[in-house]
Amino acid sequence: MLVQKYKDMLSGKSVIRQLSEFASARGRQIGYENVFDYSLGNPSVPVPRDFTDGMIELLSTRESGELHGYSPSLGIDSVREAVAASLEKRFGLPYRKEHIFMASGAAGALAHAFRLVAQAGEEILTFAPFFPEYHPYVDLTGAVLKVVPADTESFQINFEGLEEMLTEKTAAVLINTPNNPSGVVYSADTLEGLARLLRERSQQYGHDIYLISDEPYREIVFEGVEAPFVSAFYENTIMCYSFSKSLSLPGERIGYVAVNPYCRDGKDMAAMCGQISRGIGHNCPPSIIQLAVARVLEQTADLGVYETNMKLLYRELTGLGFTCVKPGGTFYIFPKALEEDAKIFCQKALEYDLVLVPGDTFGAPGYFRMAYCIDTEKVERSLGALRRFVKEQYG
Amino acid sequence: MLVQKYKDMLSGKSVIRQLSEFASARGRQIGYENVFDYSLGNPSVPVPRDFTDGMIELLSTRESGELHGYSPSLGIDSVREAVAASLEKRFGLPYRKEHIFMASGAAGALAHAFRLVAQAGEEILTFAPFFPEYHPYVDLTGAVLKVVPADTESFQINFEGLEEMLTEKTAAVLINTPNNPSGVVYSADTLEGLARLLRERSQQYGHDIYLISDEPYREIVFEGVEAPFVSAFYENTIMCYSFSKSLSLPGERIGYVAVNPYCRDGKDMAAMCGQISRGIGHNCPPSIIQLAVARVLEQTADLGVYETNMKLLYRELTGLGFTCVKPGGTFYIFPKALEEDAKIFCQKALEYDLVLVPGDTFGAPGYFRMAYCIDTEKVERSLGALRRFVKEQYG
Repeated sequence: MLVQKYKDMLSGKSVIRQLSEFASARGRQIGYENVFDYSLGNPSVPVPRDFTDGMIELLSTRESGELHGYSPSLGIDSVREAVAASLEKRFGLPYRKEHIFMASGAAGALAHAFRLVAQAGEEILTFAPFFPEYHPYVDLTGAVLKVVPADTESFQINFEGLEEMLTEKTAAVLINTPNNPSGVVYSADTLEGLARLLRERSQQYGHDIYLISDEPYREIVFEGVEAPFVSAFYENTIMCYSFSKSLSLPGERIGYVAVNPYCRDGKDMAAMCGQISRGIGHNCPPSIIQLAVARVLEQTADLGVYETNMKLLYRELTGLGFTCVKPGGTFYIFPKALEEDAKIFCQKALEYDLVLVPGDTFGAPGYFRMAYCIDTEKVERSLGALRRFVKEQYG
Repeated sequence: MLVQKYKDMLSGKSVIRQLSEFASARGRQIGYENVFDYSLGNPSVPVPRDFTDGMIELLSTRESGELHGYSPSLGIDSVREAVAASLEKRFGLPYRKEHIFMASGAAGALAHAFRLVAQAGEEILTFAPFFPEYHPYVDLTGAVLKVVPADTESFQINFEGLEEMLTEKTAAVLINTPNNPSGVVYSADTLEGLARLLRERSQQYGHDIYLISDEPYREIVFEGVEAPFVSAFYENTIMCYSFSKSLSLPGERIGYVAVNPYCRDGKDMAAMCGQISRGIGHNCPPSIIQLAVARVLEQTADLGVYETNMKLLYRELTGLGFTCVKPGGTFYIFPKALEEDAKIFCQKALEYDLVLVPGDTFGAPGYFRMAYCIDTEKVERSLGALRRFVKEQYG
């Protein structure tokens, strides 16, 4: 018989996906340029030229078996070495090849990190607002995702809530900074406080509580904002990285797990990821993409457009009276809706061809997310629609 | 705390991997050309020229966002349509896009197929000799893999063993034809008998028993051998395909699940795979590889060398007195060892720089596997070593 739980999931359609489908349908009606689609976090800028040139060079010069053959199960050695060396150079921790496990994007990296440290019956804590896919990612491992309510003042960590929810059952705490959907970057104070609390409770409970740091937006940080390196604050950190956003290639499924070199058992953990892979059919990211990415580890796509867009939106939104924490990075902004039910608010916005996502999806009702990874020219044109929407509905 | 079961797995090193490491070490000593490494099933022939040209064309002409953007969670629509159309044209079943789920190689496809139909406590049956990774693939889902002993006369299905082991707990039967490690192709008689038995027992137990057909060697079939299309025999078949062997690109992680169009609930099953993905961090094969493979669906690498190698080895082995079923496809051959313990036999062979894999690994003690995906010139040179080995040790 078919396994019922997956059949049941078919009816629970993602709100983001539905909105994005609405935007496409509306685009076919009135022209795509007239739909202000802020629903999807799909990078809008091209991959770096060197990535494309590197791929073509690999295809033109490398012997087929060497280029397209099986990757070792933890990733290609030279690629793991290059990632470790780059992390050490940039962030100062003594990463080596054995701390790096190449993974198919952040989804692949997180699937391994969760299984490394959490079993059925144990808990992983995260903080609202949060990326909604964390729920199936964790829940289908048998562990349970628990969500600490948001600190809506700052979207930093709500420590009171965290202290209450940390228990002996807590296997790991999962953070995402710079954050989807709030755009907020956790401060050094936040990370110090978190590390202190996790050390205390690890001692109290007699087992390590791991910090899983989901960092796909690490390279998208705006001027004047300092983004502290999470792993430097807490030894038992498992970093999950993806090149999807920094290099604009979310379809190519490439990222890694980097275990803090000071982590207890740190030398075994990447190797354990290789064993986890056997149970979930992972078996490495594509070889050619591993090799091509290793050549542009310290490059990014031209990410400046996201900051330009953020400034335009932040100025307009605050000018219109929205309560809004200024994003420090990512390509998201997360203002408070102008009425209590953000779902109704976002529904009304659709009449102005503004596609916004209600915060309920991210565990923060009453807010909404705009993903501004779109052309600046379109952001500019959307401002008129935004003004009309606010004036006519809430003026 | 780290999850112990994955830590424990670190000590259980794969025999194939150990032998392959021995071969590399020995190669550094005496030169790689002097080690007759028959351990690994890594394709030895280059990818088709059209694949490489297609990749370069995609990289040179497609807009970055279109080329490297997120793939829909079941795979790129046009790719799924092309796969369905090609299967329908070649094999006559009315496949449509909704029956196809693009997966990261056979490992990815199988990870989805197992979760579609089997839950903790249920059983999946397979037949010795079998690909040893089936054990972690199945066991880590919570279901149990049970192995029907081999029919060592023919390496077709041992129906007596199967009838005994099929029970109410059987969720699926897993087959692999052309077979790794025996090289045998299941006959139409075998598949008809299997389908008849599965229908009977499905009726008797009141639930469908699925057939999961792992077909990475489908395109490697030798002259004069007819390879029946498995899905045509049994409606509840889930085919797991990989392009790794047919196109010689195992590192690029591309394959698919194809649900038999006549399968009960067949229209939901690919969509359910998309839900399963969320729990195992799968999230699609790489976009560019999907697009490139779709252009060469009906091509293969130049696979003729495998048949040439098989003929050389089969003639030599049978001439030397080995009992051996003639392979109908793949790049494996699975003769009976010349002493009872094939592990000792293979150990002795290493003294002649012949790297053979004992059948114990494949659930068939007393036999050994040779993976002849190597240059024909090397196969020819290995025959002398094989003769010396047999004469000196067993003459």
